[in-house]
Amino acid sequence: MKKLINNPDDVLREQLEGMQLAHHDLIHIHLDPAFITRKEATPKGKVALISGGGSGHEPMHGGFVGYGMLDAACPGEIFTSPTPDQMYEAGKAVEAGAGILNLVKNYTGDVMNFEMAADMLMADGIKVQNLIIDDDVAVKDSLYTAGRRGVGTTVLMEKIVGAAAEDGYTLEQLSTLARKVNRYGRSMGMALTSCITPANGSPSFEIGDDEMEIGIGIHGEPGIQREKMKTVDEITEMMTLGILEDPAYHRQLRAWSPEKGEWIDVAETDEPFGSGDQVIAFVNSMGGTPVSELYGVYRKMNEIIEKKGLTVVRNLIGPYITSLEMQGCSITLLKADEEILKYWDAPAHTPALRKGM
Amino acid sequence: MKKLINNPDDVLREQLEGMQLAHHDLIHIHLDPAFITRKEATPKGKVALISGGGSGHEPMHGGFVGYGMLDAACPGEIFTSPTPDQMYEAGKAVEAGAGILNLVKNYTGDVMNFEMAADMLMADGIKVQNLIIDDDVAVKDSLYTAGRRGVGTTVLMEKIVGAAAEDGYTLEQLSTLARKVNRYGRSMGMALTSCITPANGSPSFEIGDDEMEIGIGIHGEPGIQREKMKTVDEITEMMTLGILEDPAYHRQLRAWSPEKGEWIDVAETDEPFGSGDQVIAFVNSMGGTPVSELYGVYRKMNEIIEKKGLTVVRNLIGPYITSLEMQGCSITLLKADEEILKYWDAPAHTPALRKGM
Repeated sequence: MKKLINNPDDVLREQLEGMQLAHHDLIHIHLDPAFITRKEATPKGKVALISGGGSGHEPMHGGFVGYGMLDAACPGEIFTSPTPDQMYEAGKAVEAGAGILNLVKNYTGDVMNFEMAADMLMADGIKVQNLIIDDDVAVKDSLYTAGRRGVGTTVLMEKIVGAAAEDGYTLEQLSTLARKVNRYGRSMGMALTSCITPANGSPSFEIGDDEMEIGIGIHGEPGIQREKMKTVDEITEMMTLGILEDPAYHRQLRAWSPEKGEWIDVAETDEPFGSGDQVIAFVNSMGGTPVSELYGVYRKMNEIIEKKGLTVVRNLIGPYITSLEMQGCSITLLKADEEILKYWDAPAHTPALRKGM
Repeated sequence: MKKLINNPDDVLREQLEGMQLAHHDLIHIHLDPAFITRKEATPKGKVALISGGGSGHEPMHGGFVGYGMLDAACPGEIFTSPTPDQMYEAGKAVEAGAGILNLVKNYTGDVMNFEMAADMLMADGIKVQNLIIDDDVAVKDSLYTAGRRGVGTTVLMEKIVGAAAEDGYTLEQLSTLARKVNRYGRSMGMALTSCITPANGSPSFEIGDDEMEIGIGIHGEPGIQREKMKTVDEITEMMTLGILEDPAYHRQLRAWSPEKGEWIDVAETDEPFGSGDQVIAFVNSMGGTPVSELYGVYRKMNEIIEKKGLTVVRNLIGPYITSLEMQGCSITLLKADEEILKYWDAPAHTPALRKGM
């Protein structure tokens, strides 16, 4: 197996130990159960922002713990949801009197476990909201999810909502902003190769030398179609138009209702992109694709966006939400209003993302 | 060919166009001949710092153009030296009265072309120094180089010398610092897979599913040995000890002698690392290896370094000097004194590296 690892059973712990050694000035990594917190305690009265999910998508989420982004991250085993006790202990460690907002990618296990953890924390008298991110226009329902999957918007969400939390937003204000970011963000991905998990030791799926998979998920789950390899311009057009032409999406978001004292489904609809929109464009490597090729994607994507009358006003380019060493990329577009831009531009200081400080 | 590209002949131009679109707030990309400059002109009296080399190692060098690092970068075709006219035009564009320091990785073509460019610039009355970086302990002489190859130290060099240039160092002071950084830095790399250049469309070398190549170069050139795949701990030990136990290295560095009015070989010897040394540790992905695996390398590397009585005081972890989509990694250790640490910590704002602003 061509991986820089020791025993597959030890991969997660050892990589976390390495991360701790490398970034001890910024973060603190707890084991048993595993969670990552900022080195400094949450300031009193600041909402605690937590995310988590299966490992294998680094630098997400642990690399985004720090000033201006997350207060804590819960890494599951590779491509496996973290457990409620990880989320509970992380919540107890970083809550500072203003409640917790959990940012949850829409995968069945993540949603269920973050709900259980929220129940446990609320039983301790802590206010908790769970915000589910479901931005992948490629796949509506799958083996892993009901509704859309949560992918690239998560990275932008953690930056923007993290900066607003730093700026003193209450839990309710923060939830409102997070729901807006989720409504405004859409993504689509593709893969040239499969990834290999350390536990399996073999590719998650087979793909021919002349084939690619469009609409791939971040766990190596199949996309919407298998095609013959195309040029970067053709691939980029497929993805960019897939996002821009996606119709209004109606979702049922699981949210805690303080009035009813139970988890309810909240209906929410996002509007399609339109001419005149300003967007933040995020061109992401799935891990094995070099940044040079991402610039090729960016070039064509920008051309298509401009032709449609939209403008890219900010961007992020690189490997931020990955699938181990998978070759491929994803595009995320986020409609940006004044509030979103303000917090995108605000300072952040984390192992993987640094801005303005 | 599994690459996000159009016609192989257009790869470099198209990727540069994408980079320009993405980072027009920081850089300006010139075509025919190709070079990348900062958006703002060099402040009068500041030494202009220039680097360049074959493309395919992104984000190096173009991603390091900006405040606190390079004034200009010259990208050659993939794995091919840039031409003297690129370097000449870049020099003319950014020189601001205090001369030019060219940072040149030790490859025959790069060294020769940067010398020719320096001759052309000096004929125009501009002061120029060329600093050759030769930090790869794995290979002494090869098809591509006389002496050691220039690899990972280049990234640290561009940061440190760039900050000193910003701080007002004269050309002579800057050359002295750059020579020290080169004497203090050593690197070693390894590969799990070959890369594929767009022009060839096939792997630069064949490597078995259970094999790895130790001492690989950044152009897919062979290393010092082919071995059966080992654990990350074993691989890291091989590389870290290769660096730490490397004996004093005697080099002949090509430098311009103003007294003699010609290029001469300057003899220089670096000292081995020793107990008590403080080091900056750079764990680099060759492109296709995800950051999670780099943390596994970092963990073992740190353990070995500490056992030898040295201390890692700063680090850089990620894909910064790559070989397209090659899987593998390299380690660079740089002995850090007060001057080096000061300029490592100084602000930088470039497409690929940001610090303190």
